[in-house]
Amino acid sequence: MTTVGILGGTGPAGRGVAVRLASAGYEVAVGSRDAERAYEIASRLEPRGTGKVRGVSNSDAAKCDVVIVATPWESTLETLREIAGDLENKIVVSMVNAMQKQGREMQPVFPAAGSCAQEIAAVLPTSKIVTAFNHLPAAQMEDLDSGLDADVILSGSDNEAMAEVAVMVSAMPGLHAIEAGSLALAGTIEAFTSVCISVNIRNKAHSYVKLEGIAR
Amino acid sequence: MTTVGILGGTGPAGRGVAVRLASAGYEVAVGSRDAERAYEIASRLEPRGTGKVRGVSNSDAAKCDVVIVATPWESTLETLREIAGDLENKIVVSMVNAMQKQGREMQPVFPAAGSCAQEIAAVLPTSKIVTAFNHLPAAQMEDLDSGLDADVILSGSDNEAMAEVAVMVSAMPGLHAIEAGSLALAGTIEAFTSVCISVNIRNKAHSYVKLEGIAR
Repeated sequence: MTTVGILGGTGPAGRGVAVRLASAGYEVAVGSRDAERAYEIASRLEPRGTGKVRGVSNSDAAKCDVVIVATPWESTLETLREIAGDLENKIVVSMVNAMQKQGREMQPVFPAAGSCAQEIAAVLPTSKIVTAFNHLPAAQMEDLDSGLDADVILSGSDNEAMAEVAVMVSAMPGLHAIEAGSLALAGTIEAFTSVCISVNIRNKAHSYVKLEGIAR
Repeated sequence: MTTVGILGGTGPAGRGVAVRLASAGYEVAVGSRDAERAYEIASRLEPRGTGKVRGVSNSDAAKCDVVIVATPWESTLETLREIAGDLENKIVVSMVNAMQKQGREMQPVFPAAGSCAQEIAAVLPTSKIVTAFNHLPAAQMEDLDSGLDADVILSGSDNEAMAEVAVMVSAMPGLHAIEAGSLALAGTIEAFTSVCISVNIRNKAHSYVKLEGIAR
């Protein structure tokens, strides 16, 4: 069975992905800079008692078959440089978004390469980078009973890797993967997260993206 | 009753908006550089025989109460400069997107100001600029029987103007307006159109955006 490591997996965004991956049968290693903290948080995550979610250090999480990056953007590249050797030739899924709050609105920030994913690709030149999980509401993700039914829009540096990630995503309860295209689209997909958050702040909602009119 | 002019309204995107505005009871002036062509196209648009859709020159369309910009990005600023006097202090709705095809994928292009809407705002400093209709599928928009049920995500330079546009959009059959925030979000909203088109090319679909979990 494929093992999945989540760097920065103890944050709200990473926890929701961990829960739904475990629920789909994947062996999940939730990584943190602080392995103690990861152990403690993993032991509280659903689905409990299945032994599917372990808490580990980020460097141990990086040893899994597929590695998801759920770190804050500010520390992402530094974290990846430290464990780059373990990520060679692997599929690396970025769910990292760069944004800043301005008043009551969240606004996108564009790294020099155009997106967080393209910056990650520059640091990990042999890895296959796929973006996923950018727009998902963290609280609803972590609660398996929230009724979440969301689309996950993917972009990637490699079509085969993107297709593998699509299978993984669509296996997770409440999620359906939709492939968009190359990493040239990653900046827009990442930035759209700030539009979703701004919509939610302004409309006091917990909305998420769904595309109508596409086969599922 | 509010009159609405559509600059470049004879193109596929403008026609769909004209049809649904007229269907909601608005008096619509479909503008074109070629008034003859506008007259001919307007006479064929649904809802027929209601007298709600007229074909006119762009400069006549600019005299309406609210003006929608549906021109190709390449000719937008030149068109607006010619009729800027008629647009002073008015609500100007931009549905303009900048993008280019790369292989089988549509990729966003970012004008220097960050978005087409912000470029338009610089040319029309007294107008209230609101973005809308960016992600809509043209063919389904023009066909009132297509079953379209789409969200329209708005950004704007002025909250009151954005609220007025939201009322207009939600009055149109099959559309629901959702306010996102300031024009700092316009570039991302515009660019997301290329993600939607790329999704549709890759998945042979005619999908459009809907946000789940928001009150309607």
